[in-house]
Amino acid sequence: MSKQESMGKPFRRLLLTGAAGNLGRQLRSALAQWADVVRLSDITPIGDAAAHEEHVVLDLADRAGVDALLEGVDAVVHLGGISVDAPFDDLLEANIRGVYNLYAAAQKHGVKRVLFASSNHAIGFHPTTTVIDADAPLRPDSLYGVTKCFGESLSRYYFDRFGLETVCLRIGSSFEVPKTARMLVTYLSYRDFVELVRCSLFTNRVGHAIVYGVSNNRVAWWDNTKAAFLGYRPQDSSAQFDGMFPVQAPTVEFDDPARQFQGGPFVVALPQS
Amino acid sequence: MSKQESMGKPFRRLLLTGAAGNLGRQLRSALAQWADVVRLSDITPIGDAAAHEEHVVLDLADRAGVDALLEGVDAVVHLGGISVDAPFDDLLEANIRGVYNLYAAAQKHGVKRVLFASSNHAIGFHPTTTVIDADAPLRPDSLYGVTKCFGESLSRYYFDRFGLETVCLRIGSSFEVPKTARMLVTYLSYRDFVELVRCSLFTNRVGHAIVYGVSNNRVAWWDNTKAAFLGYRPQDSSAQFDGMFPVQAPTVEFDDPARQFQGGPFVVALPQS
Amino acid sequence: MSKQESMGKPFRRLLLTGAAGNLGRQLRSALAQWADVVRLSDITPIGDAAAHEEHVVLDLADRAGVDALLEGVDAVVHLGGISVDAPFDDLLEANIRGVYNLYAAAQKHGVKRVLFASSNHAIGFHPTTTVIDADAPLRPDSLYGVTKCFGESLSRYYFDRFGLETVCLRIGSSFEVPKTARMLVTYLSYRDFVELVRCSLFTNRVGHAIVYGVSNNRVAWWDNTKAAFLGYRPQDSSAQFDGMFPVQAPTVEFDDPARQFQGGPFVVALPQS
Amino acid sequence: MSKQESMGKPFRRLLLTGAAGNLGRQLRSALAQWADVVRLSDITPIGDAAAHEEHVVLDLADRAGVDALLEGVDAVVHLGGISVDAPFDDLLEANIRGVYNLYAAAQKHGVKRVLFASSNHAIGFHPTTTVIDADAPLRPDSLYGVTKCFGESLSRYYFDRFGLETVCLRIGSSFEVPKTARMLVTYLSYRDFVELVRCSLFTNRVGHAIVYGVSNNRVAWWDNTKAAFLGYRPQDSSAQFDGMFPVQAPTVEFDDPARQFQGGPFVVALPQS
Amino acid sequence: MSKQESMGKPFRRLLLTGAAGNLGRQLRSALAQWADVVRLSDITPIGDAAAHEEHVVLDLADRAGVDALLEGVDAVVHLGGISVDAPFDDLLEANIRGVYNLYAAAQKHGVKRVLFASSNHAIGFHPTTTVIDADAPLRPDSLYGVTKCFGESLSRYYFDRFGLETVCLRIGSSFEVPKTARMLVTYLSYRDFVELVRCSLFTNRVGHAIVYGVSNNRVAWWDNTKAAFLGYRPQDSSAQFDGMFPVQAPTVEFDDPARQFQGGPFVVALPQS
Amino acid sequence: MSKQESMGKPFRRLLLTGAAGNLGRQLRSALAQWADVVRLSDITPIGDAAAHEEHVVLDLADRAGVDALLEGVDAVVHLGGISVDAPFDDLLEANIRGVYNLYAAAQKHGVKRVLFASSNHAIGFHPTTTVIDADAPLRPDSLYGVTKCFGESLSRYYFDRFGLETVCLRIGSSFEVPKTARMLVTYLSYRDFVELVRCSLFTNRVGHAIVYGVSNNRVAWWDNTKAAFLGYRPQDSSAQFDGMFPVQAPTVEFDDPARQFQGGPFVVALPQS
Repeated sequence: MSKQESMGKPFRRLLLTGAAGNLGRQLRSALAQWADVVRLSDITPIGDAAAHEEHVVLDLADRAGVDALLEGVDAVVHLGGISVDAPFDDLLEANIRGVYNLYAAAQKHGVKRVLFASSNHAIGFHPTTTVIDADAPLRPDSLYGVTKCFGESLSRYYFDRFGLETVCLRIGSSFEVPKTARMLVTYLSYRDFVELVRCSLFTNRVGHAIVYGVSNNRVAWWDNTKAAFLGYRPQDSSAQFDGMFPVQAPTVEFDDPARQFQGGPFVVALPQS
Repeated sequence: MSKQESMGKPFRRLLLTGAAGNLGRQLRSALAQWADVVRLSDITPIGDAAAHEEHVVLDLADRAGVDALLEGVDAVVHLGGISVDAPFDDLLEANIRGVYNLYAAAQKHGVKRVLFASSNHAIGFHPTTTVIDADAPLRPDSLYGVTKCFGESLSRYYFDRFGLETVCLRIGSSFEVPKTARMLVTYLSYRDFVELVRCSLFTNRVGHAIVYGVSNNRVAWWDNTKAAFLGYRPQDSSAQFDGMFPVQAPTVEFDDPARQFQGGPFVVALPQS
Repeated sequence: MSKQESMGKPFRRLLLTGAAGNLGRQLRSALAQWADVVRLSDITPIGDAAAHEEHVVLDLADRAGVDALLEGVDAVVHLGGISVDAPFDDLLEANIRGVYNLYAAAQKHGVKRVLFASSNHAIGFHPTTTVIDADAPLRPDSLYGVTKCFGESLSRYYFDRFGLETVCLRIGSSFEVPKTARMLVTYLSYRDFVELVRCSLFTNRVGHAIVYGVSNNRVAWWDNTKAAFLGYRPQDSSAQFDGMFPVQAPTVEFDDPARQFQGGPFVVALPQS
Repeated sequence: MSKQESMGKPFRRLLLTGAAGNLGRQLRSALAQWADVVRLSDITPIGDAAAHEEHVVLDLADRAGVDALLEGVDAVVHLGGISVDAPFDDLLEANIRGVYNLYAAAQKHGVKRVLFASSNHAIGFHPTTTVIDADAPLRPDSLYGVTKCFGESLSRYYFDRFGLETVCLRIGSSFEVPKTARMLVTYLSYRDFVELVRCSLFTNRVGHAIVYGVSNNRVAWWDNTKAAFLGYRPQDSSAQFDGMFPVQAPTVEFDDPARQFQGGPFVVALPQS
Repeated sequence: MSKQESMGKPFRRLLLTGAAGNLGRQLRSALAQWADVVRLSDITPIGDAAAHEEHVVLDLADRAGVDALLEGVDAVVHLGGISVDAPFDDLLEANIRGVYNLYAAAQKHGVKRVLFASSNHAIGFHPTTTVIDADAPLRPDSLYGVTKCFGESLSRYYFDRFGLETVCLRIGSSFEVPKTARMLVTYLSYRDFVELVRCSLFTNRVGHAIVYGVSNNRVAWWDNTKAAFLGYRPQDSSAQFDGMFPVQAPTVEFDDPARQFQGGPFVVALPQS
Repeated sequence: MSKQESMGKPFRRLLLTGAAGNLGRQLRSALAQWADVVRLSDITPIGDAAAHEEHVVLDLADRAGVDALLEGVDAVVHLGGISVDAPFDDLLEANIRGVYNLYAAAQKHGVKRVLFASSNHAIGFHPTTTVIDADAPLRPDSLYGVTKCFGESLSRYYFDRFGLETVCLRIGSSFEVPKTARMLVTYLSYRDFVELVRCSLFTNRVGHAIVYGVSNNRVAWWDNTKAAFLGYRPQDSSAQFDGMFPVQAPTVEFDDPARQFQGGPFVVALPQS
């Protein structure tokens, strides 16, 4: 039996890029339930491949490699590229050329949908005293954030021009536990992350959607009302970690821009040329 | 003791039109708690009348009959008329002439409030990738939907001109169980339906309100924030029925308009002249 | 030479309904420049037919007659029906059944566009102390206004479902000269009316548009910014008629609803059943 | 050890004005947990001072007294002044001159933040059939409400000009139990009130924020989405008190303005000059 | 003949406060055309009274005096009070107590309308890089601006409660010629000022309106679309004065707050206690 | 005398990139009036240098070269890069790497302001039946348009992070005469283009502004209200060229996407990889 034939799971083949990373690892078992074949790619080795897995090590800036990577794929969860601030030339290769290569290949091979790991750093220069939704203007807080804006614009074009759907996941901070007080606000539990991916993959139509990847934390900067058609209902909250960050009067570091803007420390880092 | 004198229930007389229909039957026991007398009407026989009930069989297009029907009534739950797509001439009689007759008589007899069963088909041409609220522009998906827009406009006029209040209930899909995957989104449980009617009847002032009649389902296309003054808090969710509709990749029937717009199959049916 | 073949004018055949009325007469010479054949219809005789004209006397409620009327037509300027308040049964035939007949026939015969004479009375219950645009909610001020709302909803359906385009012309008061002080605000000169029709017919794409038919008067209740893609730039102003209405302190008839709402005297008239 | 040195609590010194009032008393034990020193002021005696408390009896219209009151203070919970309608001259002294004195002194002494007890009466002329959020225009329902608007404007100035932060708490009705049916909507439990104060004091940055002080009641007129960055999640609901107010048909007192506007009885009281 | 009887002009008696000031003087001849009797008041002597004029010298903080001042008045143009920044106690008397006195008396004596001279300083903390309209949130730039916000809130209350109409004229800079480069943006010619007063007095219904008092200058910070129902069309522009302010590169005083906010030098002045 | 010293013109040194192009040539004489020194750069030779000009031939992808180019510059008019659709790798070098190089260097050298030639193709997938303003979401119609979105996002970052101001000029079609019927809508005369540059350079504060570069044409898709603080008032209209494009009925090429979206032929071109 060829892998092209369905073995009864909803998807024949899903592609996960950035599979060796922190979030990529969270998705592997879930993807196995949803697709007959799970193709995993990363720039670094991913580890042992399960029977239903195909592993590809490649640089997203390699156009021919990415073209081959997308062949036979139903849908993509694109976590690949650089996920922190970095020198512009590196970001250019991974997050601009790489994302272009991905969409060009996806369109060529008839891929139906991409889940694009955007970031809260695409809107990190909104103040922490505002609550924004999917229509808030882009306010990148770093060169990294600017490249995420690029991915959002590029994917919008591929949707308007070719009907290739994208869900832009503006991920907050997805770690086992929050590392800073700011992350109590931006925390996305692994369980909620997997659920958000599930909703984004299985909703029948998504168009070009923007959704904030965040758990049901007590403090909220982001309003997902406009993405309610995805059916994402977070189950977790950072409240369980409140004790990790001792209560302080707000006068401490009052004027620190890292406290004034949603992007946190990104807004004060200097661009790396 | 005359029926005009209160027997201690909040309303003296409530009128329910369309009483023989599916939703009408759900309301009979609730109405009995709220009104001394419940007047029930339908174009078909309604069955045995309880002691507190008055039954009237009539066609809403019968102006004189409707005039008599509204006499002595405090408030109306108007479920009557045609609730599916139909030839225009039939819709014209039931949903245009009939609704006019109802409002003209209600105004003449000093009725204070009407609960008008509008429909999601008044806005069914909004895409399933958007979330709309009470201020979304009308986008009927069928001639049936157009007649519901008529009812909303007509009732707005009677409120602005005479102070006759209306709650337009844009009902989703109210059945024992959802019949299609789409109805997981539009599902309104009978219990929530009755509660929505209760809120709409007892809120002290409603003006001319628009509220979506939908349970607390996981996926939401409709945002009831602007109707929060009604106090409607749905208790049920379609999540219990998820298993009835096997999970599918969204590539199935991807371009079917019935999947692209909120109105579902209505948007592809042809008008019946 | 058959009439079907173009004689070099932009349109082969334009249909004007309500051709015998006040505004219909203003359009005849203009239409002659734009179409090889101008088909004129009205419920009353229209007068002598010019060589390029086809005259049809019919009641819009006559479905078969309207079906024949639309055959071979490129686009319609629909001024027909009742243009004042009237008993509901009359409005029902002319402005509801008649408009349905028109759109059903237009869709059947592949007509590309309708200019629908809506009215300021579709929004006449907005106060005179507000400025509204095309997205203002419907607030009809009369049963007549309600039927205009019906036409707007019905035409929206035919656009969303079949791509049949409509420009809803919410006409103010188009007369030789204003007849009341209110008409200084709502005045639409004949010249500007013809220009608005020209823009609505010749703009390459109009979708389903709403535009206020009003000249460049000093006082403005209506903001046409959202219809700027039509290119309508009124040339006239009611300022030339200011002298007809002596200046008064606003205390006169201060509480008259006819002064408080945009619909003027319509908002106080009673519905005629 | 001087009081200026921290004893380990988040704040060194918090000032509570209006400490002898109903709501002031609810806060005393909470404030003790958050600050080494709690300074309490009121125009009437406050009772026995605990070890960590400083009591000051003064009239807020006393500029020099207020200046001294603010010395050494980190943050203020300003409940002082008149909290019901009153003759204008009294309101002027307490709620206009007094609030000015407070802000002028706070700015002079480098206070970082004020929690200003505004009121739903600053927006009480919004109808009960609308749901408003923090951006709704001011619609005071009384001279008292006008003075609360003054406090909101004045505090906005001190934030824009000097960076002195304020949270305007538009308090509903905070009592042990609701006293009227209206208060089922406006009810703020004491527990939720204390939590709202906690959130407003400890959120790192608040800018100039407006938040409705209301519990999670079934009926809602006020939408706190824009203040979600404060992390206020009410725990209580007035639903437990529903039984206190027998169900009535809405026809009772239908036209009473006190039922039509959010301000309730305030909107019909006459100004006291 | 008593002055109470109309001599044929639209108003019987108009009251102008602040009549001895710069703008007050511009209005005297115009008012003479519109009212049989023009009552002028100021805190300083106004000069010789014409036959149709009544002169009253009084302090607006004098309640009884203001009460008498409003007797027999149809409408008021309220330019009185302090129109620059000043010590708070002075502003309190003139712009808070004085304005209250005016409205309390106007309501008592059945006055129909007040034109309230508000100021751009009520919104002066909006940046010069934004364009705001009548719905922009209040952002006073000075204590003076805060008192103008008070007047806007107070007049809103008197309209909602008693139907007493007000037009809030947010006047820019009305002088013979602009005195600074900033005033090229805020310039209101005397002729346009008089026209704005005329529109505000004669429009049949104004409700509670907000309009920016500014000429048709090349640079615009303020958008009067929402006040288009007043019919105000400025005839003048500051462009004629461009030559008075030599062209400069924007780098000069780039970071000066007086250049960053619409309020200009007001935003950097310190409050005077 | 050193060039660093002012010779009395408002700017010491202005940089114009893309100086050899069509629009670049229109600016040379104007820039000479505004700056002592005009530095011109292009990837191709620019022609003879006037006494006040410095010519630099370089590729914007050359980081060191661009760094040197920005030294000593007050403000930049950035027309350089590729201004039509092109293979992605070419766009990447010119419009992504090149724009990054420009901003990195501008920030390093303390340049105060950049005028960035964005394009209507950043929003070209908005339908021609809508009117959009500066807040419309990005809808690029081509890879070229996507790179203009990148420039808008990058410049937003440099403003939020470093205060480096940018005016994004979303230029329509700036040619001697319109070349297609579409360009009657998008036409920007050379004279209006120069005026728009003048306004953008000399307005004291611009922040990060978006303005549509279009003349006062009869048909308008773009609303510049939010940029009114720039003082740009176009003097020309494409109406003079109406005769070049014979009037046609809109049925011609009715379904051509190039007629349905503002981007015109760009929306149907295929990306060039």
